[in-house]
Amino acid sequence: MPAYSIGVDLGGTNLRVAAIDTTGQILARVAEPAVYDTGPRRVAGEIARIIRSIREKVGAEGMRGVGIGVPGFIDIAAGVVVGSANLPGFEGFPVRDEIQHLLGTPIILENDANAAALGEMWMGAGREVKDLILLTLGTGIGGGIVSNGKIVHGFQGMAGEFGHMTVFPDGNPCGCGNCGCLEKHASATAIAAMGRMMHFSGDVTAERVYELAVAGNDRAKLVFESMGRALGIALASLINAFNFPLYLVSGGPLPAWNFFAPTMFAEVTKRSFIFGRKKTRIEKALLGADAGLYGAAYLPFEFDTIAPAAVTA
Amino acid sequence: MPAYSIGVDLGGTNLRVAAIDTTGQILARVAEPAVYDTGPRRVAGEIARIIRSIREKVGAEGMRGVGIGVPGFIDIAAGVVVGSANLPGFEGFPVRDEIQHLLGTPIILENDANAAALGEMWMGAGREVKDLILLTLGTGIGGGIVSNGKIVHGFQGMAGEFGHMTVFPDGNPCGCGNCGCLEKHASATAIAAMGRMMHFSGDVTAERVYELAVAGNDRAKLVFESMGRALGIALASLINAFNFPLYLVSGGPLPAWNFFAPTMFAEVTKRSFIFGRKKTRIEKALLGADAGLYGAAYLPFEFDTIAPAAVTA
Repeated sequence: MPAYSIGVDLGGTNLRVAAIDTTGQILARVAEPAVYDTGPRRVAGEIARIIRSIREKVGAEGMRGVGIGVPGFIDIAAGVVVGSANLPGFEGFPVRDEIQHLLGTPIILENDANAAALGEMWMGAGREVKDLILLTLGTGIGGGIVSNGKIVHGFQGMAGEFGHMTVFPDGNPCGCGNCGCLEKHASATAIAAMGRMMHFSGDVTAERVYELAVAGNDRAKLVFESMGRALGIALASLINAFNFPLYLVSGGPLPAWNFFAPTMFAEVTKRSFIFGRKKTRIEKALLGADAGLYGAAYLPFEFDTIAPAAVTA
Repeated sequence: MPAYSIGVDLGGTNLRVAAIDTTGQILARVAEPAVYDTGPRRVAGEIARIIRSIREKVGAEGMRGVGIGVPGFIDIAAGVVVGSANLPGFEGFPVRDEIQHLLGTPIILENDANAAALGEMWMGAGREVKDLILLTLGTGIGGGIVSNGKIVHGFQGMAGEFGHMTVFPDGNPCGCGNCGCLEKHASATAIAAMGRMMHFSGDVTAERVYELAVAGNDRAKLVFESMGRALGIALASLINAFNFPLYLVSGGPLPAWNFFAPTMFAEVTKRSFIFGRKKTRIEKALLGADAGLYGAAYLPFEFDTIAPAAVTA
C-alpha cells in the first residue's frame, strides 16, 4: 500500500478530488460540478463523501491527509475562508473543522493559487527549484509564491496578489479601487475586453481573440502584444523584487504564448537588469487546471505545513 | 563580560565599526573616511586593524563574530562582492576570507541595504515584527526584505532591488536600461533633478529642495508630492505582492516625510485593497545611518546565518 494523500480543488464551477501518491501518481480522481446554492455545510458534506469513497477505493491505511484548495483568502491558523468572490456563503464558515469532523482526518486548507504554485514546484515546471512565482491568468490574475519550498502567505494570508500590481498608473479602472492593475490589462477578461475594443463581432472571449490571432488577424495579435507588455512590466518588477530563479505563467490564455511572449520578454529584458544577467527563467506552467489538485495533495506530505492543522484537529 | 559582536558598515565614503552587545547597546565605535584608491587588500587590512583594536578594548572573550555590510551584490556562499558601483576594485575580491585570515575570526558578509533592514528589525522600527521591507532613499533606492526574521537574498543575492521597480512605464530613463524606475522618481537624486526642473537656483540638492519646502515654496512642495506619488505606487504593488505587516522608509529625504507622505498614502490607499483592510503599516525607519551597523552586528547572533560562514572559514 503506497502512501498517498487526497487533494481537493474546490473551484467556482467544479469540485475535483484526487488521491495522489508520494511520487505524484494519481491513484483515483473524481470531478463533478460544484453546487453552492445549498449552502457551505452541504458542500462540506459532499467533499467528505467523495473523500470517503476514494479512501475506501484506494485503501485507508496509506492515507496521509487531505489538502483543500479554495478560491479565497484563508485564515490558515483558523482553517476558515475569510473572503471569497467565488464561494458564496463560505465567508467565516469553518470549512476545515467541519470536514475534519466528518472525516476524522486532519485537513489543510489553502488558497487555490498558492496550492497551484506548490503543485508546479512538486510535479510541474518548477521541479528543480525551491523558489518560484506563479501567475494564473483567468477572470482575474491569481498568484502564488513558493520560497524555500514553502508557500508565502503574508501576515493576513493575502500575499501574491499580483493581479493588483499597478502596471499603468493611469490605466483601466479596477474593481479594487486602483487604476492600471495587471489583471485589467493581462487577464482573460482583459483580453476579451480589448477584443471588444477591436470591434470583433459576436461573443468576444479570450479564446475567440486567440482563434482570430491564429487565423492571422492583426488586431487580435495586437491585443496579445498589449497583454504581453503589461505582463512583462509586472514580471520585471517581480524579478527585481524577488530575484527568484523561476516565474511561471498559467491559465486559459496560455495557448496564446507565442502571441504575447515576445512583447513580454522585450519588456522584461528592458526593465529588469537582473533578468538581463541571464539564468532567470519565465516559462509556461505545465500542470494546467491540475496544478491546484497536485498542490493540495502535496500539503499533507509537508510536515511543517500539516503540523498546525494536526494540533488544532 | 557581555556577549557582543562587531558590525562593520563599509560605505562609499565612510568606514564605520561598532561593538554591539546582544541587547543592542553600543560598547565601542569607530568611524573614519573610507579610502579606496589603495586597493581592496589595504581596505581589508584597515578593517581588520580597527576590529582588533575594538576587540582589545572591549575584551576578546565575549566576541561572537563579525558582520560586514557592503554596498554591492554579494555571493553569500563565497563571501565575495560580485558587483558594486561604490567599491572600486572589490569585484571578485575575497573580502570575507581575507579579513577572516587576518583576524582568525569568522566573518559574515552582507549587502548594506539587507543589513539595514535586519538592523531595523532588531533595534529599530521593526522590533515587534519578523517580516518587513525597508526602502532606503539615497543616490539610488536600496531595499531589503526580512521574512520570518531572516534576510531574503534571492538566488543571485539580488532580491530587494525595489529602486528598479517600474512605477511609470514611460517615465524617466534609468541607467539600468528601464524607463520610470522608482529611483528615477523618488530617490534623493530624483528630488534634486526635479528641483532643477523647477528652476531653483544654485546647487540644487534634495536637502535644498527640502529647505525650500519648509520655507513655504510651493514648487518645492510639488516635488515632494510627485516623489510621494511614485513611492506610493511602488509600495502599493509591494503590499499586494508580499502582504507584510511593515514597510519602512529610510534615507536622507526622510525629514521631508510630512511633504511626501500625504501623496504616498493617498496612492497606497487607492492602489492596494490590502492596505485598505488596515493593519499594514508604512513608517519611518528609526536607526538612520546606524541601521546597517546594527544589522551587520546582528548577523553573528543569528545561528542560521553564521553557520555557512563558519563552515567555510
